[in-house]
Amino acid sequence: MVDSSFDNASALECLVDGQPAVTLSVLDRGLSYGDGVFETLRVAQGHIGLLEYHMARLRRGLCALRLTVDLVEITSELNAVAQRLRNGIIKLTLTRGTGPRGYAMPNTAQPTRICLSLPPAAYPAERFSAGITLFECQTRLAVQPLLAGIKHLNRLEQVLARSEWTDPAYAEGLVRDIGGDVIECTMSNLFIRHDGRWITPDLSGCGVQGVMRDYLIDRLGESGQPVVVRSIDYATVLQSTEIFCCNSLYGVWPIVGLADISWPVGPQTRHAQALAEQVIK
Amino acid sequence: MVDSSFDNASALECLVDGQPAVTLSVLDRGLSYGDGVFETLRVAQGHIGLLEYHMARLRRGLCALRLTVDLVEITSELNAVAQRLRNGIIKLTLTRGTGPRGYAMPNTAQPTRICLSLPPAAYPAERFSAGITLFECQTRLAVQPLLAGIKHLNRLEQVLARSEWTDPAYAEGLVRDIGGDVIECTMSNLFIRHDGRWITPDLSGCGVQGVMRDYLIDRLGESGQPVVVRSIDYATVLQSTEIFCCNSLYGVWPIVGLADISWPVGPQTRHAQALAEQVIK
Repeated sequence: MVDSSFDNASALECLVDGQPAVTLSVLDRGLSYGDGVFETLRVAQGHIGLLEYHMARLRRGLCALRLTVDLVEITSELNAVAQRLRNGIIKLTLTRGTGPRGYAMPNTAQPTRICLSLPPAAYPAERFSAGITLFECQTRLAVQPLLAGIKHLNRLEQVLARSEWTDPAYAEGLVRDIGGDVIECTMSNLFIRHDGRWITPDLSGCGVQGVMRDYLIDRLGESGQPVVVRSIDYATVLQSTEIFCCNSLYGVWPIVGLADISWPVGPQTRHAQALAEQVIK
Repeated sequence: MVDSSFDNASALECLVDGQPAVTLSVLDRGLSYGDGVFETLRVAQGHIGLLEYHMARLRRGLCALRLTVDLVEITSELNAVAQRLRNGIIKLTLTRGTGPRGYAMPNTAQPTRICLSLPPAAYPAERFSAGITLFECQTRLAVQPLLAGIKHLNRLEQVLARSEWTDPAYAEGLVRDIGGDVIECTMSNLFIRHDGRWITPDLSGCGVQGVMRDYLIDRLGESGQPVVVRSIDYATVLQSTEIFCCNSLYGVWPIVGLADISWPVGPQTRHAQALAEQVIK
C-alpha cells in the first residue's frame, strides 16, 4: 500500500494476478478500451453473499467478451480474501490484459485479475427503514444487446447519470433507455408492484443484470410470487402500488418518492427486504 | 521501462502525469469505468500531424465528460515528446484519476495524464496504392448522443467489431448502427461518392469523429467540393461510385471491395489521398 490514493479510497488489500500490488500496466486493455468485466461482492463474517450469482454473471460477461480465465482459481482467491477481510466489499476486475495498440484482441491474451478489498459501504440505515426518494436522470441508456446485462468496464453512461445530482436527499436515480422505457437505477435494479404482481424491467437491450435482482426473482418465484420481466414505461412506474430498488451491497431500499408521487412502504416490499436480508446479513 | 509488456508493445517512452512511469493505480477511473478520453497522434520529423484537430476533439470529449485539464501543459508535453520521438505515434490518455468506489465523480478529481510514444504503424503500402477490401461487421453500434463523436475509453463495441475477422485479406471492417445505417469502419471514418458529391455519415448518434475526417471535410470544402454529412443506408454505400476510409495515421485508403461489389480507385479518391498526404508526410 505505497500509493496514497489507497488511503483516500480506504482500500485494505489489493492483489494483481494474485500478488500484492496497487498498480497495473498503462498498456492494459482494461484502461485502453474498458475491455473487461467486474464484480462488487459483499463480505460478512468472512462469507461472500450471493457468490454463485456473481460467478454466473461473471461467466456471462466473460463469454460475451470472449475472455478465458480460470474461474476455480478466482473463486478460491475470492474466498481467501473474504476470510482475511471478514466484513466489507471485494471488487474483482478481470481485463484482457496488456496488448499492442489497436482494437484487435491479442492472440495470446493474458488476462489481468485485480482483487481489491474495501471496508463496508456506509449507507444510512433510514434508507432501509424509511425508504428513499429517486432522482429522475435525463441520461438515457443506449440499446446494445451484445453488452446488455453484463457488468463490463464501459460505464460512462452510469457516470454521466450519477453526475446529474449531488443533493443527498436523493439516494438513487431512475434511468431510462433511449426509447424512454424505465431500465434501472444508477447502481441498482428496480422492482415495481402492479396489479398484485412484481414486475422488473427487461434488460435484454441495456442495463446491468444485478445479482440481487436475480436472487429475488428466484426467491419470490419460489414463494409463489413469480416476477414478470418485461419492458416498463414511465407511466407504469408512477402507477405502481409499491416500488423498490436493490443491489447486493445494501439489499432492498423501498422507494417512497419519485417526481410528485409518494408511496408508503408496503408489505410486499418488506417481504422482499426480508428475503434480501437472508443473504446480506 | 521495467515492464516486459512494454517490449511486446514496442513502447518507446511513457510519461504518467509528466513523470517516467509504466503503471497507474488500480483505482484509476479510466480502468474502473472507462472514465476518460484518448487521442492517437501521428508524428513525422518531430511534428504532430493535425494537432489542432486533435486538440479540438479532445476539448469536446473533456467537455462531454466534464473533465478539466490544462490543455496548454498537455500541448507542450505532446510537442516535447514528439521532438524526442521524431517518427511514430503518440497515444495520449486522460482519465478522471483515482477515486473511491462508485460512479459519482469525485469533488476533487485529479485527472491522470498518460503520454505514450510508439513506433510508426506498419501498414502495407498496397493498401494506399491498390486499395483495400472491407469486412462486413455484424456488431452494431448503439445510439448514444451524449457520447457520440468523442474518443472516450468505452470502446467495447469496436473491440467486438474488430474481433469478427482475422483474415488479413480484410484491412478494415464496415460498422453500422443498431438501426442499420452505415457509420464508420472499426478504426477509420468513411467517405462515399454519390451523384458527383462526397458524403460522410452523420455521427450525432454514434461513431468516432476522426480528425482526418474533419480535416478532409474542411479541405474538400475549400477546394469546391463540399462534403455532405448525413445518414447513409447500406444500399447507398453499395451504389457509390468511389469510396474510401481515412484516419490520421494512414491517411486515405481507397476501398475496392465490399460484399460482391468492387470499385476501381477513382480520381476523386486520389485527390483526397493527396490532401491527406499534405499532413501525414
